[in-house]
Amino acid sequence: MTAPLLLSMGDPAGIGPEITLKAWAALKDKSEFAFAIVAPPRVIAQANQDFDYPLKEIKTCADIASVFENALPILPIDGRVPTPGTPDPYHALSVTESIERCVSRCLSGEAAALVTNPIAKDVLYKAGFKFPGHTEYLGQLTLLEPPPYERGPVMMLSGGGLRVGLATVHLSLKDAAEQLSAEAIIRNARVMNGALQCDFGIRAPRISLTGLNPHAGENGALGHEENDIINPSARLLRSSGIQVTDAQPADTLFHAEARENYDAVLAMYHDQGLIPVKTLDFHGGVNITLGLPIVRTSPDHGTAFGIAGQNKARPNSLIAAIKSARHIANNRANYLQNGLN
Amino acid sequence: MTAPLLLSMGDPAGIGPEITLKAWAALKDKSEFAFAIVAPPRVIAQANQDFDYPLKEIKTCADIASVFENALPILPIDGRVPTPGTPDPYHALSVTESIERCVSRCLSGEAAALVTNPIAKDVLYKAGFKFPGHTEYLGQLTLLEPPPYERGPVMMLSGGGLRVGLATVHLSLKDAAEQLSAEAIIRNARVMNGALQCDFGIRAPRISLTGLNPHAGENGALGHEENDIINPSARLLRSSGIQVTDAQPADTLFHAEARENYDAVLAMYHDQGLIPVKTLDFHGGVNITLGLPIVRTSPDHGTAFGIAGQNKARPNSLIAAIKSARHIANNRANYLQNGLN
Repeated sequence: MTAPLLLSMGDPAGIGPEITLKAWAALKDKSEFAFAIVAPPRVIAQANQDFDYPLKEIKTCADIASVFENALPILPIDGRVPTPGTPDPYHALSVTESIERCVSRCLSGEAAALVTNPIAKDVLYKAGFKFPGHTEYLGQLTLLEPPPYERGPVMMLSGGGLRVGLATVHLSLKDAAEQLSAEAIIRNARVMNGALQCDFGIRAPRISLTGLNPHAGENGALGHEENDIINPSARLLRSSGIQVTDAQPADTLFHAEARENYDAVLAMYHDQGLIPVKTLDFHGGVNITLGLPIVRTSPDHGTAFGIAGQNKARPNSLIAAIKSARHIANNRANYLQNGLN
Repeated sequence: MTAPLLLSMGDPAGIGPEITLKAWAALKDKSEFAFAIVAPPRVIAQANQDFDYPLKEIKTCADIASVFENALPILPIDGRVPTPGTPDPYHALSVTESIERCVSRCLSGEAAALVTNPIAKDVLYKAGFKFPGHTEYLGQLTLLEPPPYERGPVMMLSGGGLRVGLATVHLSLKDAAEQLSAEAIIRNARVMNGALQCDFGIRAPRISLTGLNPHAGENGALGHEENDIINPSARLLRSSGIQVTDAQPADTLFHAEARENYDAVLAMYHDQGLIPVKTLDFHGGVNITLGLPIVRTSPDHGTAFGIAGQNKARPNSLIAAIKSARHIANNRANYLQNGLN
């Protein structure tokens, strides 16, 4: 039996507990997706008032397989019950403890992958959290173990038939334009190439690079980063055997026919990569962290405090993240055992 | 009988003549879309070798209606026959003459709208053309006549159920971020509001503004242009009765449900606006110039020299541009006669 999945709680005042319950109800008959949530049992019980689903506290990940079809398995931690929709730095400790417990069980092999529920960074900052986001925090927590390919973390979005990695992430547009570097492009393309092989089972991945500027700079007339940074990086990558294109005009790269020509796109900045994914698949997008020694996915939305506790949240993206985590974990296990056969 | 449409030739070495012939074949039985092309007859005859469609030289726009169902009407100008796929500055004079003839007939009312075939700016530059593009050239050619609402030109893309205007157009990403101004946002939103009323018949248009930065700046954490430029512009616009939103995160603004909430989006830069349109509707996008005293649309693609003369070009976008021009011309005529009734 392959190891089960773990879900972190996310911000307890957000929609995480609710969508976790909904995802359990949608998946409980599919044993391959068996998971537990690491959370204070009272937090889940409160969110369960609208549903009255069976819940069960368990002691180890080994209990998940037998429990999952009959009850949502909970690996208990301490923590206070929130007011839904009202974030409070008081919960920061249980938020990070949930994540850290999940990570350590993934590192030990007791769990196959981590699916994180959404956190609210500004709430965590008030409690002393120091990381730009989930992704960087997970990078730090897993630094002592080697990943199966080039180390990340690199954020990739998946949805609507697209896989998109980012060369710059949470920067203002000015800073993204100024800080774009050959180092980031080369590192992230190498991580993506490794991930496409190991985590997605693609023998010879094809990666398209976007231009930074309109029309990919129109040969220097609309910006120089293509000629100075992106295309030289592409040449270096190709010389090392990685199939990447030169900078392509981003506006013509994401339609159905164009998508046939690559396995993933490395976009130069946040909106350039996220607009096509979320335009095509708003509810089913998945955020995947590449280049970690553990498998980690996440729904592609935030805590949604505005609708928390109202039974309005859709579990689609979390369910997609759970399925994606299972798929990647299986591919990775296969790759580590058999290579690219 | 309402006035007919005119097509400019575009670069004769590109796909313009070919897609014009294909568009005529697709539309010849639909008299409401009757058009003529303003071009040297030999240029069209050469492109017609693959098709052998009936062609007919005409003398005035008044001849179009009776000719159109039996032959492609040509309003002749002088000009040399090109080598398809091989641009040559020698053709610049016939390219611009075609545009200018079309414009003067639209201004006189003999034609109802101009649909421009693609031009190659760098070829025209070699012959002394001074404008950043078609749009600005048309702005100049029509400066002496008043538009029916706020003067542009403002470029709007339409396709996939979206209408998107741009606050900055053909600038490098760095320059777009640096040059974004309240003046441009206010002017372009006013032009779009006028166009949505006059040209699209929408009584109370709703316009969504994008943020410049990821997550619309996340309240200043990821950039200040939302707080400093975009949202103050939005407040001024609303105080003048124009329905615009504050800056919205661009990645979550273009999916099907979000599109229900506006009639058009004003995007802050080229790729932000063009990625969603071309991702959703690559072959049928239309470029519409707002705020001119004439109606002007254009296919949303270039000269495609690489496939010119090979009978490979799709007329979809040109046909969409012709239909859109007719629709706008009819709306505008109705608006000028009856107002928003």
